[in-house]
Amino acid sequence: MSNVKVASFGMSIDGFSAGPRQSLDNPLGVGGAALMQWVFPTRTFQQMHGEGGGETGADDDFAARGFANVGAWILGRNMFGPVRGRWTDESWKGWWGDEPPYHTPVFVLTHHARNPIEMRGGTTFHFITNGIHAALESAKKAAGDCDVRIGGGADTVRQYLQAGLVDEVHVALSPALLGQGEALLSGIDLTALGFKCTEHVTSRHAMHVILSK
Amino acid sequence: MSNVKVASFGMSIDGFSAGPRQSLDNPLGVGGAALMQWVFPTRTFQQMHGEGGGETGADDDFAARGFANVGAWILGRNMFGPVRGRWTDESWKGWWGDEPPYHTPVFVLTHHARNPIEMRGGTTFHFITNGIHAALESAKKAAGDCDVRIGGGADTVRQYLQAGLVDEVHVALSPALLGQGEALLSGIDLTALGFKCTEHVTSRHAMHVILSK
Repeated sequence: MSNVKVASFGMSIDGFSAGPRQSLDNPLGVGGAALMQWVFPTRTFQQMHGEGGGETGADDDFAARGFANVGAWILGRNMFGPVRGRWTDESWKGWWGDEPPYHTPVFVLTHHARNPIEMRGGTTFHFITNGIHAALESAKKAAGDCDVRIGGGADTVRQYLQAGLVDEVHVALSPALLGQGEALLSGIDLTALGFKCTEHVTSRHAMHVILSK
Repeated sequence: MSNVKVASFGMSIDGFSAGPRQSLDNPLGVGGAALMQWVFPTRTFQQMHGEGGGETGADDDFAARGFANVGAWILGRNMFGPVRGRWTDESWKGWWGDEPPYHTPVFVLTHHARNPIEMRGGTTFHFITNGIHAALESAKKAAGDCDVRIGGGADTVRQYLQAGLVDEVHVALSPALLGQGEALLSGIDLTALGFKCTEHVTSRHAMHVILSK
């Protein structure tokens, strides 16, 4: 069955999934990299970035599971890049270099139209200007029997959660405080939306929880 | 050195330390008991409630540490009981029976004066009507060289955190969703207050974090 899922989403003790003041130097906002310490050493992450080795175990299992069976991605505009407003030129092609780690169609939510960008390795960025439902429809069509992964950022995940369009969320709680930033779950009544905590595994670096219906 | 600490404070994935609608049947609010599943099996908890045995390990270590070196407690009115407004009679003496688990002076924040209540086992409840600073002053005097523990509930902890009066917080993150309830940290910039995550241990049931300055 095709699911809509959020995976490997880091969250701080105080509920933030990114720090404040995202920029070219701080794609996850100030302090936000602390939320991904669990994933950097994993085999999945290391191999994705062309390095050998990497650790196996619970953290790697969750990192790998997030990429399994994904047929399309949806990203918010800020997750695609630090450019705001109209695309002044076509030079920004995402944070990820020539071969982004998606390898599927990626639907980017934006208010500003732009032509699709075909990247190496099977990733094509499509820019969707008519809202989250339209993006999900396109992503589901592209994914076929595979899952659609909502890649983030926090605001995009919140919009899909609040619209009742998400089937499963994997949150990786990190032992870090951010103080300020992008809150992930606050103000969303996940229980009323039908979610339960259906699985949890603790590792040395994080507590992994699966929230699903 | 005498510290002001919060310990063994349960929190859900969505940031709540108690569920909604606290009552005689649900002292921790609806669903709130899920936040304390990590503590119930521990030796510390079992022995405190007159049972033998109980589990040792990380959960028990943190439960025990919360009670070590405590010379006085501070509780909010709602943590003391479900009675609201004026004390209509003197019959309510806390949730904990004749011998509460404090064994020290306990300072209860309330807007409504009441005579102290001496319980078995060294616990005396004092009712403080002139605010959190006055309660802390009395508690520190009573505790001497020992620590003052802010027992809760969430709103009381938040008031002491926001006033900059807390030295250390131990949060036990449970793999549970509450949807609604008493938020513990949201809206408080702990980083600006000087806190860092200085220690973390994961167990099968929870992720324990120590936030301190």
